[in-house]
Amino acid sequence: MGKQKALMDKLVRTFQIRHMLLRQALAECLGTLILMMFSCGEVAQLVLSGGSHGMFLTINFAFGFAATLGILVSGQVSGGHLNPTVTFPLCILGREPWRKFPVFFLFQTLGAFLGSGIIFGMYSGYTATVDGTGENATAGIFATYPSKHLTLVNGFFDQMIGMAALIMCILAIVDPYNNPIHRGLEAFTVGFVVLVIGLSMGFNPARDLGPRIFTALAGWGSEVFTAYSYWFFVPIFAPFIGVVVGMTVYQLMVGYHVEGEARENREEEEKEENQKCVKQINF
Amino acid sequence: MGKQKALMDKLVRTFQIRHMLLRQALAECLGTLILMMFSCGEVAQLVLSGGSHGMFLTINFAFGFAATLGILVSGQVSGGHLNPTVTFPLCILGREPWRKFPVFFLFQTLGAFLGSGIIFGMYSGYTATVDGTGENATAGIFATYPSKHLTLVNGFFDQMIGMAALIMCILAIVDPYNNPIHRGLEAFTVGFVVLVIGLSMGFNPARDLGPRIFTALAGWGSEVFTAYSYWFFVPIFAPFIGVVVGMTVYQLMVGYHVEGEARENREEEEKEENQKCVKQINF
Amino acid sequence: MGKQKALMDKLVRTFQIRHMLLRQALAECLGTLILMMFSCGEVAQLVLSGGSHGMFLTINFAFGFAATLGILVSGQVSGGHLNPTVTFPLCILGREPWRKFPVFFLFQTLGAFLGSGIIFGMYSGYTATVDGTGENATAGIFATYPSKHLTLVNGFFDQMIGMAALIMCILAIVDPYNNPIHRGLEAFTVGFVVLVIGLSMGFNPARDLGPRIFTALAGWGSEVFTAYSYWFFVPIFAPFIGVVVGMTVYQLMVGYHVEGEARENREEEEKEENQKCVKQINF
Amino acid sequence: MGKQKALMDKLVRTFQIRHMLLRQALAECLGTLILMMFSCGEVAQLVLSGGSHGMFLTINFAFGFAATLGILVSGQVSGGHLNPTVTFPLCILGREPWRKFPVFFLFQTLGAFLGSGIIFGMYSGYTATVDGTGENATAGIFATYPSKHLTLVNGFFDQMIGMAALIMCILAIVDPYNNPIHRGLEAFTVGFVVLVIGLSMGFNPARDLGPRIFTALAGWGSEVFTAYSYWFFVPIFAPFIGVVVGMTVYQLMVGYHVEGEARENREEEEKEENQKCVKQINF
Repeated sequence: MGKQKALMDKLVRTFQIRHMLLRQALAECLGTLILMMFSCGEVAQLVLSGGSHGMFLTINFAFGFAATLGILVSGQVSGGHLNPTVTFPLCILGREPWRKFPVFFLFQTLGAFLGSGIIFGMYSGYTATVDGTGENATAGIFATYPSKHLTLVNGFFDQMIGMAALIMCILAIVDPYNNPIHRGLEAFTVGFVVLVIGLSMGFNPARDLGPRIFTALAGWGSEVFTAYSYWFFVPIFAPFIGVVVGMTVYQLMVGYHVEGEARENREEEEKEENQKCVKQINF
Repeated sequence: MGKQKALMDKLVRTFQIRHMLLRQALAECLGTLILMMFSCGEVAQLVLSGGSHGMFLTINFAFGFAATLGILVSGQVSGGHLNPTVTFPLCILGREPWRKFPVFFLFQTLGAFLGSGIIFGMYSGYTATVDGTGENATAGIFATYPSKHLTLVNGFFDQMIGMAALIMCILAIVDPYNNPIHRGLEAFTVGFVVLVIGLSMGFNPARDLGPRIFTALAGWGSEVFTAYSYWFFVPIFAPFIGVVVGMTVYQLMVGYHVEGEARENREEEEKEENQKCVKQINF
Repeated sequence: MGKQKALMDKLVRTFQIRHMLLRQALAECLGTLILMMFSCGEVAQLVLSGGSHGMFLTINFAFGFAATLGILVSGQVSGGHLNPTVTFPLCILGREPWRKFPVFFLFQTLGAFLGSGIIFGMYSGYTATVDGTGENATAGIFATYPSKHLTLVNGFFDQMIGMAALIMCILAIVDPYNNPIHRGLEAFTVGFVVLVIGLSMGFNPARDLGPRIFTALAGWGSEVFTAYSYWFFVPIFAPFIGVVVGMTVYQLMVGYHVEGEARENREEEEKEENQKCVKQINF
Repeated sequence: MGKQKALMDKLVRTFQIRHMLLRQALAECLGTLILMMFSCGEVAQLVLSGGSHGMFLTINFAFGFAATLGILVSGQVSGGHLNPTVTFPLCILGREPWRKFPVFFLFQTLGAFLGSGIIFGMYSGYTATVDGTGENATAGIFATYPSKHLTLVNGFFDQMIGMAALIMCILAIVDPYNNPIHRGLEAFTVGFVVLVIGLSMGFNPARDLGPRIFTALAGWGSEVFTAYSYWFFVPIFAPFIGVVVGMTVYQLMVGYHVEGEARENREEEEKEENQKCVKQINF
């Protein structure tokens, strides 16, 4: 086994990427690919089986669980954002450098693009047996389209509020000064949040844009962008506005106070520590 | 990034509220708002979609998960009660000061009021498409109304027993002398309890009163108070009586014994500690 | 608040039961009462609502969650067995003294008896609206009756195998030498096992006998014992035989080996520890 | 109790198997038996009850939970692979010795064989009441058969992709250098992965081959091998190819980088440690 171990060690040294940002970008790409494969696969199964394999609850479960798995795979390396609207407020709050934002956005979109390609290939064997469902139904497997009675303004408002609620919970979960969730449980908790919100699909610009580009290339055409008076803008911009709203509310009502308190406690402890040292020296 | 960090630090110092009780009240308000948004949003979705988006199980899940999220956001600051009938027994047992009770009750009701307002706004785009459902059906999205065959006395008994069971489990979970649930898991466990009870809606006076006031103001009128022979008294008073029953049973059958045992162990340990010190000095 | 604290302390001293076994028996009684209320309440809701409030999955969830809550409430005091067939193998393996077995059996049965009484009272307001369901349907809310095509022998075999599987998993979870489940998670894991088995109702002799006595007294008469050629013997005896089978298989295939290994490791560590001490002294 | 304890100790010493590999093989056998009993039992219940006891979601839950329980029972002893395609990449990566692979494969298949025998016996009392379901339906309880519209190539591709996704997540969960999942939670997380993939049945060669042999012997005949143009090859070979694909992708995109980084951190720490020692000596 010594020989195999040496070979493995050599492989590690050969393929290890030393550029930290590239390494993190790859992890984000793989995480978003997994998020995409599982969530999208479930919707595909539901649509293509004509409703017998899954239901509203199953889809919500699948989205939540897919987020958990994506975070598990990428979390240790890149933090497991898997969503530019999660990277965004962390940059604003100064917890991540701004240069990460465009790189993560690009690789998250790439991961979603590749994930939708795999699902497209995997279910291509079934599509022959599906008929009677419009073009939209199958395009809806990959990206978001508004439901019938929704105006553009309503849709925008919906996505904004939903994202604000999502980011408030996520900020509370990852806030180093708030509730001490065990690190290994963070992935589950975020997946859980996604499950509860239950509308998560359109709240991830990368998760929406990547597959939309894929469907445009794979034969659905430019209509995926122009349909419903250029709806595709909504799932890209509304979440970012929602994030700013949610972040501000959370920080003003909870975040700033726990952070301030933690700093004061720290300062006090340091003072005590100093006094203890002084005592020990005098002892 | 130094500049941004300085700005962030300044924001923390500016907005940090030093008055502890106000800070806790704000956290309770935000937590109840989140509890309200998610639980109520699920019911709204079910009623407005005519039953296709959700079912009995989904609603129970949504209530339990909503409680978990609300506690996660507010837990570190205020304890995440989100319900005056949780604050109440903790005051009786001397674990929280009595002055917290009215303040928490007010801000919890305020949070539920604001939460129902957001849901009302969010789904106002859909309401045009709903018809054939009575006024009660939509009022029932926000506050509790009795089911058809229930008399006032039965309803009171139901809510009392339900709340007694709920508080027994919550007291066991947060009892510092009983089962050592990891702190980060308490939020999940309480959400879990709410899910199991599955009737939780009417068991939170703040969760019921806030939205009821909102619906009265938003056009449903004073009927939300007078309907069903002043039913609205039941979800406000029955839970408090249930809490006293449940607390008494739990304390007599489990609580007092683990607390007494813990005190005795502590005293014993202190004695041993003293003896050890004596030994070390003699060593 | 000083006065209230003094009062509370006095209450603790007054009501604290110093007899350990009685204290544990009370905890088992309360835990089984909670297990009974939640699991039985769910079945009652399903039967009385004519199937609209719940389904096969909901009942399994309710049983698993009810077990979790019962264990949470009683776990720290008595271990949270809530089932004589869990106490039984622990006595055989020498982890609990034998005198606990009859006491726990009695108080578990008492808890199940009281729990079914509460459910009976709680739903008595609804029963007037139920008709067309036979007497068995409502008796089946409280205790187990065989399904139509099952012979007595098949039923016995079913319950035996089911209990053997249940006890294998429980022994693995609480085995101090096997998989290190965090203590606070044990309650969830056992509830989980009950959920998976999904037939748990008849696998708890106390959970079955207590409610059966209650229904006999509450008007269903002695038929609850004599029906189906004295079926009531099966859920009392089959689980115990299953437990012995499951325990033997688990101990022979896993338990004895991890225990032996742990003992050897311990002995080795002690040897090393001794050598280290010797070294330190010689240092 | 002293006498009983002595007897128990003697039993441990008598039955403890000192041969490590045999001990692990037995644990794998018991774990796979449990995995088989619970997952297969759920499918049997669904098929034999004509759909009323369970649904698509329930089956996915049962598969995930069954995996969790199997891992809980065997994890501490053998690692809880329960699947030759999990043992396989761990051997390739040099984390397990190659001689384990054939032994584990054999005992996993044996466990699945025994588990399907128990289920067959347990439900044999019901089969008389089932008619109108073809032979395939009941054979499908135990092993995988392709759905109607699937060609052999599509089926192969499906299983390969599915297994690649499964192994990526499992490798991330058990990767000692990646996300620090608490050991007691690993079982839940893997069960969770199986649940999400929701197609897990065919992804475990042992889980498929053992029951297939059992059904061949129990009366279904050699057709279980020859049906659908020798389909039985697919669930045995496709997963292994998928594992290699998934492992390579995970290692290249995440695994090698975290491992390399961990090694560098270790080396750095050792250096610091040395310097500290030097300092202490000079102090």
